[in-house]
Amino acid sequence: MLLALSTWPEIEAYLRTSKTVVVPIGSNEQHGPTGLLGTDWLCPEIISHEAAKLSDSVLVAPTFNVGMAQHHLAFPGTIFLRPSTFIAAIGDWVRSLGAHGFEKIYFLNGHGGNVASIEAAFSEIYAEYSFRQERAPFALKLKNWWDLKGVMSLANQQFPVGHGSHATPSEIAVTQWAYPDSVKTAAYEPKIAPTGPIREALDFRARYADGRMGSDPAQATPEKGGALVTQAARSLIEDLAEFSAEKRI
Amino acid sequence: MLLALSTWPEIEAYLRTSKTVVVPIGSNEQHGPTGLLGTDWLCPEIISHEAAKLSDSVLVAPTFNVGMAQHHLAFPGTIFLRPSTFIAAIGDWVRSLGAHGFEKIYFLNGHGGNVASIEAAFSEIYAEYSFRQERAPFALKLKNWWDLKGVMSLANQQFPVGHGSHATPSEIAVTQWAYPDSVKTAAYEPKIAPTGPIREALDFRARYADGRMGSDPAQATPEKGGALVTQAARSLIEDLAEFSAEKRI
Amino acid sequence: MLLALSTWPEIEAYLRTSKTVVVPIGSNEQHGPTGLLGTDWLCPEIISHEAAKLSDSVLVAPTFNVGMAQHHLAFPGTIFLRPSTFIAAIGDWVRSLGAHGFEKIYFLNGHGGNVASIEAAFSEIYAEYSFRQERAPFALKLKNWWDLKGVMSLANQQFPVGHGSHATPSEIAVTQWAYPDSVKTAAYEPKIAPTGPIREALDFRARYADGRMGSDPAQATPEKGGALVTQAARSLIEDLAEFSAEKRI
Amino acid sequence: MLLALSTWPEIEAYLRTSKTVVVPIGSNEQHGPTGLLGTDWLCPEIISHEAAKLSDSVLVAPTFNVGMAQHHLAFPGTIFLRPSTFIAAIGDWVRSLGAHGFEKIYFLNGHGGNVASIEAAFSEIYAEYSFRQERAPFALKLKNWWDLKGVMSLANQQFPVGHGSHATPSEIAVTQWAYPDSVKTAAYEPKIAPTGPIREALDFRARYADGRMGSDPAQATPEKGGALVTQAARSLIEDLAEFSAEKRI
Amino acid sequence: MLLALSTWPEIEAYLRTSKTVVVPIGSNEQHGPTGLLGTDWLCPEIISHEAAKLSDSVLVAPTFNVGMAQHHLAFPGTIFLRPSTFIAAIGDWVRSLGAHGFEKIYFLNGHGGNVASIEAAFSEIYAEYSFRQERAPFALKLKNWWDLKGVMSLANQQFPVGHGSHATPSEIAVTQWAYPDSVKTAAYEPKIAPTGPIREALDFRARYADGRMGSDPAQATPEKGGALVTQAARSLIEDLAEFSAEKRI
Amino acid sequence: MLLALSTWPEIEAYLRTSKTVVVPIGSNEQHGPTGLLGTDWLCPEIISHEAAKLSDSVLVAPTFNVGMAQHHLAFPGTIFLRPSTFIAAIGDWVRSLGAHGFEKIYFLNGHGGNVASIEAAFSEIYAEYSFRQERAPFALKLKNWWDLKGVMSLANQQFPVGHGSHATPSEIAVTQWAYPDSVKTAAYEPKIAPTGPIREALDFRARYADGRMGSDPAQATPEKGGALVTQAARSLIEDLAEFSAEKRI
Repeated sequence: MLLALSTWPEIEAYLRTSKTVVVPIGSNEQHGPTGLLGTDWLCPEIISHEAAKLSDSVLVAPTFNVGMAQHHLAFPGTIFLRPSTFIAAIGDWVRSLGAHGFEKIYFLNGHGGNVASIEAAFSEIYAEYSFRQERAPFALKLKNWWDLKGVMSLANQQFPVGHGSHATPSEIAVTQWAYPDSVKTAAYEPKIAPTGPIREALDFRARYADGRMGSDPAQATPEKGGALVTQAARSLIEDLAEFSAEKRI
Repeated sequence: MLLALSTWPEIEAYLRTSKTVVVPIGSNEQHGPTGLLGTDWLCPEIISHEAAKLSDSVLVAPTFNVGMAQHHLAFPGTIFLRPSTFIAAIGDWVRSLGAHGFEKIYFLNGHGGNVASIEAAFSEIYAEYSFRQERAPFALKLKNWWDLKGVMSLANQQFPVGHGSHATPSEIAVTQWAYPDSVKTAAYEPKIAPTGPIREALDFRARYADGRMGSDPAQATPEKGGALVTQAARSLIEDLAEFSAEKRI
Repeated sequence: MLLALSTWPEIEAYLRTSKTVVVPIGSNEQHGPTGLLGTDWLCPEIISHEAAKLSDSVLVAPTFNVGMAQHHLAFPGTIFLRPSTFIAAIGDWVRSLGAHGFEKIYFLNGHGGNVASIEAAFSEIYAEYSFRQERAPFALKLKNWWDLKGVMSLANQQFPVGHGSHATPSEIAVTQWAYPDSVKTAAYEPKIAPTGPIREALDFRARYADGRMGSDPAQATPEKGGALVTQAARSLIEDLAEFSAEKRI
Repeated sequence: MLLALSTWPEIEAYLRTSKTVVVPIGSNEQHGPTGLLGTDWLCPEIISHEAAKLSDSVLVAPTFNVGMAQHHLAFPGTIFLRPSTFIAAIGDWVRSLGAHGFEKIYFLNGHGGNVASIEAAFSEIYAEYSFRQERAPFALKLKNWWDLKGVMSLANQQFPVGHGSHATPSEIAVTQWAYPDSVKTAAYEPKIAPTGPIREALDFRARYADGRMGSDPAQATPEKGGALVTQAARSLIEDLAEFSAEKRI
Repeated sequence: MLLALSTWPEIEAYLRTSKTVVVPIGSNEQHGPTGLLGTDWLCPEIISHEAAKLSDSVLVAPTFNVGMAQHHLAFPGTIFLRPSTFIAAIGDWVRSLGAHGFEKIYFLNGHGGNVASIEAAFSEIYAEYSFRQERAPFALKLKNWWDLKGVMSLANQQFPVGHGSHATPSEIAVTQWAYPDSVKTAAYEPKIAPTGPIREALDFRARYADGRMGSDPAQATPEKGGALVTQAARSLIEDLAEFSAEKRI
Repeated sequence: MLLALSTWPEIEAYLRTSKTVVVPIGSNEQHGPTGLLGTDWLCPEIISHEAAKLSDSVLVAPTFNVGMAQHHLAFPGTIFLRPSTFIAAIGDWVRSLGAHGFEKIYFLNGHGGNVASIEAAFSEIYAEYSFRQERAPFALKLKNWWDLKGVMSLANQQFPVGHGSHATPSEIAVTQWAYPDSVKTAAYEPKIAPTGPIREALDFRARYADGRMGSDPAQATPEKGGALVTQAARSLIEDLAEFSAEKRI
């Protein structure tokens, strides 16, 4: 069930059966010579929408499509929120959903660079309650899609060499499966991109000339992407069930 | 051309031919008993994507899908950013796009309640330059999709009575055209919803029991929506051309 | 009754009879070669003080005299608050007045450029309550003085040509009536100023060399100003009575 | 010369002869049973306007009329800005005036409770430059009107007993001189109000039942007020001359 | 009792006997050619720790060691918080301590430049309650260590000439007593440093070449420092007892 | 070399030989029945001071002693900064150090809960430069002390069972070595504390009754702590050398 394609009476009805909602969250940032700029928000969107197709109990909020991509800003097309803005925005999403009675708010994340700010946002929101020695009316959970059960092992099987950490064949495969008309090709040089530290934007571009980190995206195929989506969607359904069942202590 | 489905080298190439980008911006909020919660961000997304299909010179950023919907928060499913958060976020989108060299940043808006905060955001961004008596490197423009040439006159023709101001048949028709599988029906009571002032969330729900304001959405059809999209997309292309041509004085 | 010239026991007594207060709000910004820099805050101050003379039931707060005038900053004497600061300050005025039990807080505005930020401020304040699904203890209303009943029609009658939108003969006439010793003259060239879009400060000065937009202020006279003030003050009293009578729904 | 009653070309001309501007700054807060709520902003306004009458070289900005009066909020009519808002707003006034080329910005203050926030604001503004190891283009000075040369000694002479620290006979006398129609009377009980610490609003009202601290305002007369204004205005002119002459080191 | 060297059960037990806590607060900033950069936070730490040794009823929080030192930033080693950051941080310390039930939070300050921001912080915190017409659950007190009973008179006796206002012999003596291995010497030129106004960082360095203001630190000795610490620690114990005994009115 | 016990001329001299500085950063929070509240800031302080004793090239800033400990607030004595405050404060420390010419700013961290906010702070600071497509004048590095080379392997050797993740025997051992007079004992029940997720403060206290997570602190001894400090200090010196040598790309 997609929240944006539902009416408010439908959500009111849903809330009588479940207090759980998934928010796909990602980033709009360069993904090397062939990766789509939207890769990091498209992946959690694709996976969570697939889960919603497979299970009636899954409710998916609109996608939070711009995140913390400061280090990619030297590549055209990257759009990002400073951590302070990102934290404030996540807070307002959570406060809005919490106001409706959602008690389990699950962020399915598509970008490693988001993790710090999302966790900081959670603490910022909880602090409003902690300072008053009150319980927050909701629990917040962050999960990267590649950390869903069985996903990384499948990716390692598909791409035993050259998976890397940015513009990876697995995330590119996922978008190829969902957007077959937008599959891009390029001559990668070197085949497997270099690795190293992440600092600020100009430093990043100087270190990683075409934007990839440690990856060989040439291995991506729509089929591999489809397998990853299936695995991830099933595990997401399970993980949501577990989160929904979690009792307040 | 959709930015999120492009690679960074494609955007780099685009910037050599044009410095203009469209950002569809809306709100995720209740739209009466049959309107989709996403209506206000789906409409500018649908129209700008249609324009991108019609013209190679149109570049569309990801959709800014959550806006200023404080007054709708008493209806489940509404998600909103406080004006201060919204202003900060628009600022970061603009600073990101500006950093890449975009000089004409055009927000195609789908929600009347966004207008004040978007204009405030523009002034907030410009102020950074004005305090230093410097020129901003970009011009910002806000346009509501229903203010595009020929759109409102077509809507008035299609819906001479009961267009109203919230959950209007025109916006619902647009989403019906694009999402035919998500067309919803309900018995509207009264047929044409009441009108009145907009205050805070609980006041709004008390005044407008099913969420509509002055509208009779039963008149919406996918066909009418298609006609509106075609008109809006063509006018958007023209308006963008004019904005792109605007000389710095 | 002017709040600033009252004592706290007088305000305590007033609150037993009425919960309504008017806040004149404007901007301190260039108004062409002859308009006073204070024009936009002087006008609502003049009109609301006149209303307080005509009716014992009108309570006027101090004037909020600096607003959103980013686009006028290239002209000396302009002082402005960024929207984020303006929103925070309006919030503190409202929270202060609300703490005393005022339930109807009416902003009489003298500057078109303020509208977006004031409306954003209202939403920002209401959001504190909406996120908790609570009612705000006060209603907020914004009215531009030229939108008071009968004012614009009188101005159109007085200035059928060359009223324009900035440094208008009507606002200048109002200040001439109240500050006859500060009437200024100049040779306007051209007689009627050009019109066009509003962007940032240096762009504005480049487009509008002497600061006027579409106006011919030579037509202003203290007498015309007096007539406008009388009309506006009477309509303000009526509008306040209506706002005071508005029931919570 | 009053900035708000001047045109921008007049200010442009003034800036060719002087880079100094006075900002009267105060607070709108309870001043005991007979003191006007506006006392703390009216006093610096009255004195600086008097100085502008006496000397052509004095330019006075609009009055910053709401300040840090948190501790008075339990008395109706008090309006205040939180320190964070106050600091932001002072910053925008200074940045605006600085953008026009004012190099000496002098705040004539009428409220002891403002001092901490104004000084914090100055440091906040300077920090923008210090972090870049740059010089600020302006110098900022804060002066309480009662600290102007000869003022406190005159007040002590006029009110050897019962001057106190809030709702003092001296400040009330100043407003009586300027607003003779707004002179209020009351039976003070006790004649001289108690003294003690200042904490938050409800604590303040519990300690100081009628709002006065240590003062006997019955001694105020318009004549004494007039003498104070004359003394303060003359000293202000001198102090401004000295500040204007201060060389950058 | 030092909070940082205690366990949470020990603090829980302490709270059953007392609701008072001391927070040493200072600044890390240049102190002339021989003063330690930490002088302003070391002094209140040394004094409060000494008081904790002398009395079991004294609980000392960790030291807040970086404050408002904008004007010293042109000298290497200075670290500071902008007033807005400082205010936010003091707020979080207070909210944390208040959440545990501390009702008397006493800041022992070592830096004159902190006073404005600390007082602004207190008002900012109280305002949260005042806007709701509620009492704050804690009282906040600021005391500079040199204002503790008997301290300044002893310092004046020890240093009748050349005490000055920055890098004073008294504060340097205190650190010499506590850190005898870090006593530094230099040829002071001139013997007694000049005095004058405080503006921003580069102005400060231009006026005060070696960082001192009005002081002759050569007079400092560990013995004099020890006497000051003893006097200050005893007076602190008394002052805390008085603050603890203060009844809510 | 300890910055706080140095003079500004000493730091000026140091900067001619090195541009690197270490900032110990931690948290003041409950550490179970026997762990000191200061454990998380004492550990990096102890280790970095030890490194400064071993090597003249190590410069240590004052300790940033309060961090992100929202989840521990239900235990008395915990003090914390909300992420937004923490980010702002880290920013001001970095901007201050950067203003003096430090180019390598190394945060030695003692609290896992700080990591997200510190990384967010780094991105926030870098963003100021990235938005302008400029290089930051400094590189920032975060290292947890237990991630220094050889430390975790030594801890695993010392505590093969019951190390856990909060109030660990390794961190308690480090403080026991440095503060032998503050060694506390208690009967742990159960011997090894439970593990589980971290949410907000009251949830944390409900899950972890005495504050420990997965640990058996009874195994800590001052001797083991000394061995850990020696290993960590040596590795810190190496890691700093490597960071100092890192070339700008």
